[in-house]
Parts: sequence; C-alpha cells; structure tokens
Amino acid sequence: MEKGYIHVYTGNGKGKTTAALGLSLRAVCAGKKVFFGQFIKGMKYSELECVNFIPDLVIEQFGRDCFIYNEPTEEDIKCARKGLNKLKEILKQGEYDLVVLDELNIALLYELFDIDEVIEVINNRASHVEVIITGRYAADKIIEISDLVTEMKEVKHYYTQGVEARSGIEK
Amino acid sequence: MEKGYIHVYTGNGKGKTTAALGLSLRAVCAGKKVFFGQFIKGMKYSELECVNFIPDLVIEQFGRDCFIYNEPTEEDIKCARKGLNKLKEILKQGEYDLVVLDELNIALLYELFDIDEVIEVINNRASHVEVIITGRYAADKIIEISDLVTEMKEVKHYYTQGVEARSGIEK
Repeated sequence: MEKGYIHVYTGNGKGKTTAALGLSLRAVCAGKKVFFGQFIKGMKYSELECVNFIPDLVIEQFGRDCFIYNEPTEEDIKCARKGLNKLKEILKQGEYDLVVLDELNIALLYELFDIDEVIEVINNRASHVEVIITGRYAADKIIEISDLVTEMKEVKHYYTQGVEARSGIEK
Repeated sequence: MEKGYIHVYTGNGKGKTTAALGLSLRAVCAGKKVFFGQFIKGMKYSELECVNFIPDLVIEQFGRDCFIYNEPTEEDIKCARKGLNKLKEILKQGEYDLVVLDELNIALLYELFDIDEVIEVINNRASHVEVIITGRYAADKIIEISDLVTEMKEVKHYYTQGVEARSGIEK
C-alpha cells in the first residue's frame, strides 16, 4: 500500500473543517474508509447527518456541547483524552485509510494533552494512513511533521455584515 | 427566505475545490439542494461518484478532459460558454440553494468569457441562492462583489517530495 501523508489546514479563514469534510467525501468516492474525529466540538452540526447516506464514513465527537471560552474544564480534558486514546487505536490499527483530527490544533492550544504524545500517536500509525489535521494556530512541531500545510487566510468575512453562523453553511 | 451570500476560495494552496465539496455536503445535510458546476475540468475525478449516494447534489462539468496548458482552444471556450449559459438559468431559477462555480477564476483568467457578464449572471440570481466561487487568481472585480473571501495559502506541499496527485486525495 502507498504511504499515507500528513495534511494540515490552519489559519483564521473559513474552510478548514470544510476542506477536511470534502477530502473525506472524495476519499470515500475512491473506495477509501474514513474516520472523522472532532476534538473540542460536541455540537450537533449538520455534517453529522452525512453518515446516514455516505458509506464508509464514521464521525465521532470528542468535545462538549459548547466551545471552550476561557480555561478548559476537567470535562473538556476528559473528552479530549478519551478521543486521543480512541484515535491512537484507530491510527495504529489501519482499518481507516483517512483519519481526520478535526480541531486538533485547538485542543493543543488549550493543552488538553501533550503535543509530544500526539506526535507519537501520529507517527505510530499504520504507514498507509493519511492524516488530516485542522484548526487555527497549528504549532510549529505539528507543521514540522506534516507533508502538506495550507493556511486558510481570511481576506473578507461576512460577519462584518452581521451574518451569523447558518445551518448548512457554517454548521 | 434568507439572503444568499457569495464566497470565494482562492490562493495557491490545496483545499479550494475540496472546501466547496465539503460545503456542498454540509448544505445537503441541512436539507439544501446543491448544483456543483465545474469549469475547465472534464476529467473523471473521484468526487463525481458522490452523486450516486448523496441526495440533492448535481455535479456537471463544463471543461475538456485535460487542463488548458497554453492558449485555450475553441472547444475550451465553447464548453465554458455552454456552462455559463446553463448556470445563468440555474442561478436565476433558484431551485438550487447553493451553486458552486468551481474554477470560475481560472475560466476568467483565460478569458473564456467576459467578467462583467459573469458578474451580471451572479447578481441576477434568485436572492436566496448562496454562490461559491473557486480557483486561483480571483480577479479584483470578483472579490469586490463577494461577501466572504478565503485565500488558501501554500505553506508546505508534498510535491516537493515527488508526490503526484492521488485518487481519493487530490482527484
């Protein structure tokens, strides 16, 4: 089997989780199996529905039903830790060809777990597994181990027009 | 119905068409209808298969089976023109809530049709239709009429490692 690479989608612009979702869809279309893990998020986003009609795609959330605003709570840390343990198995076992670590960068920003442990988990994956990491503020250590890094840069945003997150577009 | 906005995903990084694909999936999950038009492209990408299992998503290609390398041919112009005419109807009619104009920026770069005509087509859409424009080198006039613009910036790319486009990841 071919070698799997590590992608990072970071930056302050719209399109990071969305690109990971598009990549997951393309992978499924090519006969690959996808595991889409979401750190931080536990909210009921529209995209969770897609497992009802897309074969070979699993989405699992490792966050609470709200964002972290100030300090992470014990519950935030517990959820993230549970996610990392699960992903460790998924990555090592290699059943899924593409594994998304959505908002991993934010989980690391909040220090929900140790970055060196995460890197070890990623490096110990089955060699054919492609890894997609999303979230603002990608750490230098994450960029170092990655093969493809795209920064989504906000040029213009409609929240300046007062547009709030809408179902089917942002959430 | 809510007002539909115009998004642009541009820049030299990976993730533009992919984000449009992800956004289409999220929109379908929220019960919206999506028309995904691809300029320039006529190649058999993996993502074309997704219409087999995703409801309310139509993909149509308005390009030839190869990229334009130097000057566009008459056939390139004919395909793109046919696409613009079709999209004009789709946008005006308003049956589809989200309409993707994939690689429109490249079609404009090659002057396959006139930018002022395109802007008229977009501005004459049914007011609830959300429009997604992708492709490198977004023209200033396109950015001006848009509500949300993200630049996908290449920070690191694995083609420097000799990795070519792979099925299910890039195509």
